[in-house]
Amino acid sequence: MRKDYLLTPGPSAVPPEVLLSMARPVIHHRTPQFMSILKEAHERAKRVLLTKNELAILTSSGTGAMEAAVANLAAPGRKALTIDGGKFGERWGELCDAFGFERRTIKVEWGKAVDPADVAHALEEDSDIAAVFATQCETSTGTLHDVKALGEVVRGTNAALVVDAISSAGACELRTDEWGLDVLCIGSQKGLMLPPGLALITVSAKAKALVKAAPSKRAYYFDLLKALASAAKNDTPYTPALTLIIALNAALTRMEEEGVEEIFKRHTLLARAVRAGTKALGLALFSTSPSDSVTAVKVPDGVDGEALVKRLRDVHGVVMAGGQAELKGKIVRIATMGYCGRYDVAIAMAALEMGLAEAGRKVELGAGVRAAEEVLLGG
Amino acid sequence: MRKDYLLTPGPSAVPPEVLLSMARPVIHHRTPQFMSILKEAHERAKRVLLTKNELAILTSSGTGAMEAAVANLAAPGRKALTIDGGKFGERWGELCDAFGFERRTIKVEWGKAVDPADVAHALEEDSDIAAVFATQCETSTGTLHDVKALGEVVRGTNAALVVDAISSAGACELRTDEWGLDVLCIGSQKGLMLPPGLALITVSAKAKALVKAAPSKRAYYFDLLKALASAAKNDTPYTPALTLIIALNAALTRMEEEGVEEIFKRHTLLARAVRAGTKALGLALFSTSPSDSVTAVKVPDGVDGEALVKRLRDVHGVVMAGGQAELKGKIVRIATMGYCGRYDVAIAMAALEMGLAEAGRKVELGAGVRAAEEVLLGG
Repeated sequence: MRKDYLLTPGPSAVPPEVLLSMARPVIHHRTPQFMSILKEAHERAKRVLLTKNELAILTSSGTGAMEAAVANLAAPGRKALTIDGGKFGERWGELCDAFGFERRTIKVEWGKAVDPADVAHALEEDSDIAAVFATQCETSTGTLHDVKALGEVVRGTNAALVVDAISSAGACELRTDEWGLDVLCIGSQKGLMLPPGLALITVSAKAKALVKAAPSKRAYYFDLLKALASAAKNDTPYTPALTLIIALNAALTRMEEEGVEEIFKRHTLLARAVRAGTKALGLALFSTSPSDSVTAVKVPDGVDGEALVKRLRDVHGVVMAGGQAELKGKIVRIATMGYCGRYDVAIAMAALEMGLAEAGRKVELGAGVRAAEEVLLGG
Repeated sequence: MRKDYLLTPGPSAVPPEVLLSMARPVIHHRTPQFMSILKEAHERAKRVLLTKNELAILTSSGTGAMEAAVANLAAPGRKALTIDGGKFGERWGELCDAFGFERRTIKVEWGKAVDPADVAHALEEDSDIAAVFATQCETSTGTLHDVKALGEVVRGTNAALVVDAISSAGACELRTDEWGLDVLCIGSQKGLMLPPGLALITVSAKAKALVKAAPSKRAYYFDLLKALASAAKNDTPYTPALTLIIALNAALTRMEEEGVEEIFKRHTLLARAVRAGTKALGLALFSTSPSDSVTAVKVPDGVDGEALVKRLRDVHGVVMAGGQAELKGKIVRIATMGYCGRYDVAIAMAALEMGLAEAGRKVELGAGVRAAEEVLLGG
């Protein structure tokens, strides 16, 4: 008998009442009944994201929202600035290339956050830049980029700031309007506590004006103006993943009950506990700017990181993520994201302790859990 | 107390064990556990669709699969031929325009099926046509197009035959390989008995060669070659809607238990019963080539079709679809699609009888149900 615990940075665990909401009989989407559910979802999501911007829900993974942003902002004569500090920053560049959006790219060492001054410098140098594509939490490295500072840099320019908030929304501090984030791209299976299959996108007046000034000829399913026009009428251009939207409403209800500020604080506390626990086990963090939603821990020399993650998953039932691409086998990523509490941190620390011990590494059993508990108790 | 019955042509009703499969705790998608689920779904879906072609599952509505077909087949110098006999045939044209696929369009009167000779003629006239975009069941009018005959016409040419089978797959007779259907686009919320949120696409060697000969520069999320390459490894390029894929497996299990030929026969019988019942009520069909998955019934003069559908839905709890676009208020569409049995036909007929009576129309109560029963009993 193996009992499973999901601690990966997406999909993350889904609360039971949200899971059960998806088992209800299916309804038709072109009905007042569904339109009122969609309306509630729109309104709740805006409140949770601290924005009065327009918002649309797309039936796709988070990458669909990223594509919607790029495909609709791209236009001849416009340039993009992408920030690439990991697998998901890289995706912005790939999307720009796919949609013929001429781009400059700021390469950031994996595990480091972008220096906002570099973005300011690029914008000063090139006034054709119409959109800056950033990542709040780079999931592949567990790195938080300071999108608040990027908002200050981009605000006075003609460019729109587009933020991949896929693995940060609903977890890390995120003040869309106050920080001037023109477009947010969000996936359902992270801080929003849902299964994958939905993407959310918020669009400021500034970003919308850019899209309207040169309507895309390269977007149909992800036509942003069409999606926003439908959303304004609590409708969707195409049949939506309605069971997931019903579940979104259930998850957002839970989020509003907790309160946005409390959600930020909880994730900060949980991530601090993870960082303290791993430090107590003699493990180093991969990132110099660690996110509160996912912690990337360096696998110590002499331990096979891939085997460790695999054994914890298949034998212990504790599912954490390994590294991607160049980080394969070199890090373990532990999520504190969404439906996650203090005992998930205890599980993660206990799993690291027992997993490393079984891998032949000398480890003080209980030391990681103890350090985490000290933080959780307000130490 | 109102008890609801969903009889719309998508979303259609979902069996209880499929609904419940979505309430299981979420798992991670990059695991052997999920890859084996995906492998099973791929294999089962191919068997149900009677194809050995490659298949990929996309996280989107059915329109996403249509976009994948158009965006990846479009190339400079190539022409498309679209068949437009309703709202969904029109969508092929819109997609071609969005992706710069130069097109010829055969306009077909709403409610009529395309004449395959017209397609043959167009292909003879223009050898640059690289893809023919057809609709098997035009949901907006309840019309079945003879895609078997289209397969015979297109087979010997250089063009690929792309079929929107969104509201026919899992219901109407559909023999992908035998009929030479190069690309099938399918949505989850119809004959496949799932909620919306997934699309399936099958691709023949001929169609894949066309895509490979001029790889798309306009597809990223819907990059077909990337999706097929991932699918071949039982993986997906982006995080999939995994609860829906688990549900797909459950639904396909049920379909295989019934058997594909039995599924075809059941839908033929149910649709015949609907047609006999409506005829007995003195109602005319809208289509001259009615589909076995959805029957469009003309609303009799003097009856407000929109009010009828609304009243049946909101007061009786029987949810059927009205007409779209130019057919608004003029037809009622009754689905026999997927999780649907003989008593759904009885409900539909009883609802028409009582709804029309309440609308002030003289109607012989029970006459529609009786005629339907006679068919169902083998008359």
